Amino acid sequence: MTSATLYMHDDQPLEFKRGGVLPAYTIAYETWGELNADRSNALLILTGLSPSAHAASSPADPSPGWWEPMIGPGAPIDTEHFFVISLNSLGSCKGSTGPASTNPTTGRPYRLDFPDLSIEDIAAASARVVKHLGIDRLCTLIGPSMGGMSTLAYLQQNPRGARHYLNISGAPKSEPFSIAIRSLQRELIVSDPNWRGGQYDEKNWPENGMRMARKLGMLSYRSAEEWRSRFGRRVQNYFPTEPFGMNYEVESYLEAAARRFIGAFDPCSYLYLSRSMDWFDCTEGHPNLTSALQGIELQSAYIIGVDTDILFPPHQQEAIANALSENGIQTAYTQLPSIMGHDAFLVDYDHFNPLVGAYFKRILHEDGLAAPAA
Amino acid sequence: MTSATLYMHDDQPLEFKRGGVLPAYTIAYETWGELNADRSNALLILTGLSPSAHAASSPADPSPGWWEPMIGPGAPIDTEHFFVISLNSLGSCKGSTGPASTNPTTGRPYRLDFPDLSIEDIAAASARVVKHLGIDRLCTLIGPSMGGMSTLAYLQQNPRGARHYLNISGAPKSEPFSIAIRSLQRELIVSDPNWRGGQYDEKNWPENGMRMARKLGMLSYRSAEEWRSRFGRRVQNYFPTEPFGMNYEVESYLEAAARRFIGAFDPCSYLYLSRSMDWFDCTEGHPNLTSALQGIELQSAYIIGVDTDILFPPHQQEAIANALSENGIQTAYTQLPSIMGHDAFLVDYDHFNPLVGAYFKRILHEDGLAAPAA
Repeated sequence: MTSATLYMHDDQPLEFKRGGVLPAYTIAYETWGELNADRSNALLILTGLSPSAHAASSPADPSPGWWEPMIGPGAPIDTEHFFVISLNSLGSCKGSTGPASTNPTTGRPYRLDFPDLSIEDIAAASARVVKHLGIDRLCTLIGPSMGGMSTLAYLQQNPRGARHYLNISGAPKSEPFSIAIRSLQRELIVSDPNWRGGQYDEKNWPENGMRMARKLGMLSYRSAEEWRSRFGRRVQNYFPTEPFGMNYEVESYLEAAARRFIGAFDPCSYLYLSRSMDWFDCTEGHPNLTSALQGIELQSAYIIGVDTDILFPPHQQEAIANALSENGIQTAYTQLPSIMGHDAFLVDYDHFNPLVGAYFKRILHEDGLAAPAA
Repeated sequence: MTSATLYMHDDQPLEFKRGGVLPAYTIAYETWGELNADRSNALLILTGLSPSAHAASSPADPSPGWWEPMIGPGAPIDTEHFFVISLNSLGSCKGSTGPASTNPTTGRPYRLDFPDLSIEDIAAASARVVKHLGIDRLCTLIGPSMGGMSTLAYLQQNPRGARHYLNISGAPKSEPFSIAIRSLQRELIVSDPNWRGGQYDEKNWPENGMRMARKLGMLSYRSAEEWRSRFGRRVQNYFPTEPFGMNYEVESYLEAAARRFIGAFDPCSYLYLSRSMDWFDCTEGHPNLTSALQGIELQSAYIIGVDTDILFPPHQQEAIANALSENGIQTAYTQLPSIMGHDAFLVDYDHFNPLVGAYFKRILHEDGLAAPAA
């Protein structure tokens, strides 16, 4: 398997917001396109909960990425003009340091010895990658879903960190409904007999807990409307029908999706990242969101929400847009009508690509960016 | 503990829709008010998934019922004028025959030997109670939530079964989103190590699965809006904070609610009733809902839905109202603005009582009902 993954190994200690420190750590990232001469055309994507850095294919790794139709030559995020960086979040398990990584002091995986991870730590580690690449200021910071949280933290930590900002289905803080969903997902995992206080191993993986947590996730990522038109009451024939087992297509769809996820994600990483979202409230220490985002210098911001999103409901994106706007930042907000729910940015490209494409065309035009080095 | 519960022991075999038969069975019920001389003032309430027959207090059982503010002298369902019957659904575990009852052929609980239960079987057993009480035709049939399904089945089986009909947050069939939620709830229960294929006992109760299933239920019964205003991001101090454990008030609220439920409901009953809802589609064998409800004779129908209900969303109640209306039945429909979600009828009495009260006042007035025997 070819890989386009690059690694930043940082020996500067990373102090965590809630205490604890990593003396050294690694962030996995990928890039597309070329950095131009004045290093002014860099875009950074901070991801949702589960993606790797592999957002799109490239000659070095032709396998499709998690945002494949969005990134590439001539795509909405046009790699003929922009230098695109996508990274695997700190705390994740796809190349970056996280609870599944080896703890150098014990020679075994960190697991529960990993410091308590906050969204702010993900942002801080991400900024180190940008610095590592010799970029002073990003052209655009991009954050969908959890990335919509980490990018807000990034801008709070680096008020001049980017000239433009694209936040998709993000949130300034977690609200009780999404906390309740994630809390129950975590409970499903730690209730699995194989969890054993984090001492699971390859042979005794908390697979069942992860599988059910993923199903609960899917319930929050999609919408009733989509499933009504997609599955209706059609009966499934794929999985054997046991007592109280699967009968309908929607059930086998969820089962198949959950099974795909089980092996691909470390349970501890999942728990740490999930909890970091619950903890996130970028208004902490501020009277309101407008005050929390004061001082951020952006030429423009574009905020997109989806009307059927029950996990990061659109009033949260609207709040971000209003707060940026009240801080004098030229901000546009779109509430997208899509039946795809929170996941729309990953599946509803018909709706998303024109919006994202138009934003980056405007940036190209307004900034008069120097062409990348050929 | 005093009890107002009455029991109908029926020796007439009950054949189940999907096969299997109960040679004899019991339905627990309660009544309030007095039947009038021409037996024309009887209301029957078919309940949601979990309630007992004890819908309201009475001299015989002064403990508050599950619909306490709705039923009583001078209440919206006025027991000075109506004879009110509420029963525990067939398949439940609160006095009526269900999977937790003793199987007379083995002397042990039925558990998985109970016949596959359908909503239609609940309706059929309920109609036997009405007959048992010597009532030819109900004044009004009332069904909230799952009861909104069983009452539709009741009317299909007994087209002249009632003169009036009140359906609250019901559905003509289960849609994939609600199926997915219930399917995952069932999976949580049968994944509990104590489930043991239905061979749990008092010492080894699938308590953890039931607890998590109830939490998932709560997620679908309430609304994000309610929890936002009720809990916000307030931190909880009630339960000890363990790694990945409860941190926020919304989490301890769910935990407390789930713990209250665990002991009160038999896991097998829960599974059977849950699955019966998934299976329900009153349009089976019909080209559409209007055709499915053809032939039902009602003087009036009143259908109420709640705008924040994600489990039985309001378009489903609207569909019922339209279908009844297209069959020439005088039908009113209210989509109630309430932040209480599917559970609104159980908690948002400020909104519900005036609507229900007005409907029954109209019935009293239009029908010119004879006064109950004093």
